[in-house]
Amino acid sequence: MAIRRRRLARRVVGWSRKLSTLKQAKRRGAIDEGTTSLPRAVHDADLTVLATPVDAIVPLAMQAARFMQPGSILTDVGSTKAQIVKALERRLTPGVAFVGAHPLAGSEQRGIAAASVNLFDGSTCIVTVTRRTDRRALARVRRFWSAVADRVVVIDPVRHDRLLAAVSHLPHLLAFCLVGATVREALALAPRSFLDATRVAKSDPTLWDDIFLSNRAALLAAMDRFDRSWQTLHTHLSRRDRTALHRAMATAHAKRHALKDR
Amino acid sequence: MAIRRRRLARRVVGWSRKLSTLKQAKRRGAIDEGTTSLPRAVHDADLTVLATPVDAIVPLAMQAARFMQPGSILTDVGSTKAQIVKALERRLTPGVAFVGAHPLAGSEQRGIAAASVNLFDGSTCIVTVTRRTDRRALARVRRFWSAVADRVVVIDPVRHDRLLAAVSHLPHLLAFCLVGATVREALALAPRSFLDATRVAKSDPTLWDDIFLSNRAALLAAMDRFDRSWQTLHTHLSRRDRTALHRAMATAHAKRHALKDR
Repeated sequence: MAIRRRRLARRVVGWSRKLSTLKQAKRRGAIDEGTTSLPRAVHDADLTVLATPVDAIVPLAMQAARFMQPGSILTDVGSTKAQIVKALERRLTPGVAFVGAHPLAGSEQRGIAAASVNLFDGSTCIVTVTRRTDRRALARVRRFWSAVADRVVVIDPVRHDRLLAAVSHLPHLLAFCLVGATVREALALAPRSFLDATRVAKSDPTLWDDIFLSNRAALLAAMDRFDRSWQTLHTHLSRRDRTALHRAMATAHAKRHALKDR
Repeated sequence: MAIRRRRLARRVVGWSRKLSTLKQAKRRGAIDEGTTSLPRAVHDADLTVLATPVDAIVPLAMQAARFMQPGSILTDVGSTKAQIVKALERRLTPGVAFVGAHPLAGSEQRGIAAASVNLFDGSTCIVTVTRRTDRRALARVRRFWSAVADRVVVIDPVRHDRLLAAVSHLPHLLAFCLVGATVREALALAPRSFLDATRVAKSDPTLWDDIFLSNRAALLAAMDRFDRSWQTLHTHLSRRDRTALHRAMATAHAKRHALKDR
């Protein structure tokens, strides 16, 4: 929808396993035409964007690349990047370049019904670069996302995974954990602070165990860093150390205030 | 503002230490008149509502009650209840009844500038009861809040503190902790999931160390319950146990989906 609104492509072809999804996409104005045939979908595409759960990206890319023209470009929108980029920059069909991308947009919802032409307004998109990245393809993908998102950040995929573990995967895991640890009697009184903190626990769990496991090492490191702060706060509270508790909270408060809410 | 809109009182008198606050409250239509004199503010009041940080409620109530008429009622809106109710149901001036209350409304903001006539729309208010609670006063406070909030729940203050530790104090502490544990480089990429999960870390830290410390035992218990779930998820992730990870997340997902968002 964003591509078509901005007239970034002559033609947008949608691919899905399900005909009903394609019909819905057509009706919503997201695609010019749809097909359930992968070869037909990608054969004439200059740019192919894979938007599937992270575990499906590598096998689907390998399959799609076999039908793509030399000089064409493959990219994705997966939430983790190191595994995907490593696999695809090495193994793809010669002549087809892969560039990883991760637009920081979306919500706990999924499917065409949750699509919005404004989804990327004000958002940041991360595009990955390694020593192996094809520079012409990188420039092309960067230009593409510059036209869709508000800001494009180019970083290496390992750094992407480390940073996103901290600001996306960890908050998602905390949300699932918080809901899981709360007794039903208390849930009935949940105020807005709880609802906001756990909104993302409404996300599809299947998508998210993929993400957690494909970024396992970085997420475990982020969990450990969180844990050290958590144990420190626990100690302050146990000891009734108001000064230390206040200092920790005031620092967090100032850091959070400096962030622009969207 | 909610009292005046619903015409629940003949006259609303505001008390504050600062004249500028009273002027602002008058301008916003929150009060009929304002005074910086506590005796003048409470002398003719049928119902006095204390809305201060939790640590100030008991001393202020003791002071206010000395100037109140026999048969009048004192209530509060503090976020913790056991300490406050225990202190005030025992020690107040004879003839003045105290009933604890906690409207589950509000945000990370404070002050008159953040006031909204719709603040309590759709909200739940908890009113506390113990063996010592004056039944006439309880009925009065309950009726008052029934006219302002959507739902009134009457429970004992210890149970209130245990439940609110789980659904309010714990999420607030998690938000402060998550921001505190996040490196600035990652904060620059914070997506909406992070911003929503940490919105309440913009709350005044001074208000919240009061709340945390005045509900210390229940909060430590909630932290420990959270910790057990957290360590379990850590183990699943460490062991790459997708089945166990998925099961925990799917349970949380279903619990969260059953909650009505506001």
